[in-house]
Amino acid sequence: MENRTEIATLGEFGLIDHLTRNFETHNASTVLGVGDDAAVIDHFGRQTVVTTDLLLEGIHFDLMYTPLKHLGYKAVMVNLSDIYAMNATPTQLTISIGISNRFSLEALDEFYEGVHIACEKHGVDLIGGDTSSSQKGFIISVTAIGEVAPDKFVKRSTAQKGDLICVSGDVGGAFLGLTLMGREKKIYLENPQIQPDLENESYIVGRLLRPEARKEIVDFFAANNIVPTAMMDVSDGISSEVLHLCRQSGLGCRIYEEKLPLSEDSRKAAYKFGLDPTVCALNGGEDYELIFTLRQEDHEKITLNEDISVIGYMTDPEEGTKLLTKGGNTFDITAQGWNAFQK
Amino acid sequence: MENRTEIATLGEFGLIDHLTRNFETHNASTVLGVGDDAAVIDHFGRQTVVTTDLLLEGIHFDLMYTPLKHLGYKAVMVNLSDIYAMNATPTQLTISIGISNRFSLEALDEFYEGVHIACEKHGVDLIGGDTSSSQKGFIISVTAIGEVAPDKFVKRSTAQKGDLICVSGDVGGAFLGLTLMGREKKIYLENPQIQPDLENESYIVGRLLRPEARKEIVDFFAANNIVPTAMMDVSDGISSEVLHLCRQSGLGCRIYEEKLPLSEDSRKAAYKFGLDPTVCALNGGEDYELIFTLRQEDHEKITLNEDISVIGYMTDPEEGTKLLTKGGNTFDITAQGWNAFQK
Repeated sequence: MENRTEIATLGEFGLIDHLTRNFETHNASTVLGVGDDAAVIDHFGRQTVVTTDLLLEGIHFDLMYTPLKHLGYKAVMVNLSDIYAMNATPTQLTISIGISNRFSLEALDEFYEGVHIACEKHGVDLIGGDTSSSQKGFIISVTAIGEVAPDKFVKRSTAQKGDLICVSGDVGGAFLGLTLMGREKKIYLENPQIQPDLENESYIVGRLLRPEARKEIVDFFAANNIVPTAMMDVSDGISSEVLHLCRQSGLGCRIYEEKLPLSEDSRKAAYKFGLDPTVCALNGGEDYELIFTLRQEDHEKITLNEDISVIGYMTDPEEGTKLLTKGGNTFDITAQGWNAFQK
Repeated sequence: MENRTEIATLGEFGLIDHLTRNFETHNASTVLGVGDDAAVIDHFGRQTVVTTDLLLEGIHFDLMYTPLKHLGYKAVMVNLSDIYAMNATPTQLTISIGISNRFSLEALDEFYEGVHIACEKHGVDLIGGDTSSSQKGFIISVTAIGEVAPDKFVKRSTAQKGDLICVSGDVGGAFLGLTLMGREKKIYLENPQIQPDLENESYIVGRLLRPEARKEIVDFFAANNIVPTAMMDVSDGISSEVLHLCRQSGLGCRIYEEKLPLSEDSRKAAYKFGLDPTVCALNGGEDYELIFTLRQEDHEKITLNEDISVIGYMTDPEEGTKLLTKGGNTFDITAQGWNAFQK
């Protein structure tokens, strides 16, 4: 039988000590970590990058199909993704949690195991946080901190007319994973005897539950002297992010439907669920890929990287924000985004 | 009649634009603020200090007697207090909120007005955050960032034997304010006709609802070449904090009951409620004063500051952590802390 240790037996400080016992700091910039009023960082003449995200049970995740270890991993990844989206390197992290008494210490340990794996993978130090009881639901707040050489960060607002619009990896998979899990949950709730049918769906399920922040892409930029003119991460869907880049840069765009990168697994899943793969690629969120713009003269530098797709280009604002379909039609891009799918 | 604008009419990005429209950045170190994947800070050869706190409705605050403007102010202050407790200067802040649909835009505006006043008062820039709907309750997560000259931060673990233990301002008031509000809430719930009797209690109510982070104390240190040997802020109560300083510094202590600083208002309130003022001073939390240790030879430097009280001194660990009462008795200090009062 599973062990269950009540969190109340440790007290707040005992709990923090317990949860952070396996976290060692690796970065020289981490001067002082967990255990004081605040942590101290020395970025040695580099600039500090800061991002924060709130993840709430019932809004951002469903514990019915989200293992706690994956949740811890994902809570870290979605924040690291924002740091990479600035062309920066994540270095430190704080994590605060609010938990109701239905969580045991063992459950929290699982969550922190996922946090630990994600931090280790990206060389990030856990330097602080807060723990609290909550009246209802699991509340997670993560702040990630990174560093970047002075003024080498990449904003959303600096794309230029004519720049190529590129996206890393493939998109739509996380949304299809969410669709699958929603379907299986419904079947299960109607008949708990039926085991979920996740066979052959490990790719899209992994995209949803275990996203990867795209460190390799930022490393590739550094190794190949590439500086994107603008960049952000794909959390709400390509449509929504493209519109952000256009609005903040004061430009328009053309996106080619045929260039949207979808995995074979995602495409198959879309057909199986009776969904249009293009709609999934455009409006499905939570893929945590990077979308960025590039000067045309830098095109050659990315051609050998199969993990980067050129999906369109930036135009004058008067030309609008348009999708060119495979059939030759032109549509206005509208941001349905991730939230719309939740309704 | 009061205006009520539904938040859903703005969308997430419209909401963020609206809430942050009055926030200008003042610090040269704020290179990039709200509106991108992350914010960018340049602390110009100084070290970066980071702290984070989660504030949850029903756990940390009760909206029945907490005006939203005060709540916004307090959410900022409790984080700035942690930065000052490192002997550092706060410079930036991120704030994330989760809100249910019972909150109107006007209510959120009130909350952000309090955030704004607190930020302006301490010269702090709001540089980011996250907004989300919540299934239940108001969720607030704040991360404060500050700066300090290299290695000039003050930890909890570096007090020395013989050091004086000092505390700023007065303590116990916030707990007495909480006691009063709890009492008045109970009376009101039993009979909504009865108006709360808060006359003559504005001091303790203010201590609870509108705490002030002790910038003046840290400024005083700088102006008078004082570097405390250890420091933290008083959020859980003097007893709890003294035990932290002792444990983390590997020492014991003597605290004198007669030296505990209580305001006349707090003392009167304690007697009125039938409480021991000393217990309120020791175990009442949320005063957000600074508790610090000082080399004895620095004593002269603080004698002219009436806002600083010496309450005891650090000893060898073998001598334990003791309170010497006015009557000449000696007791072990136990951490009841703020949480105990909640039960």
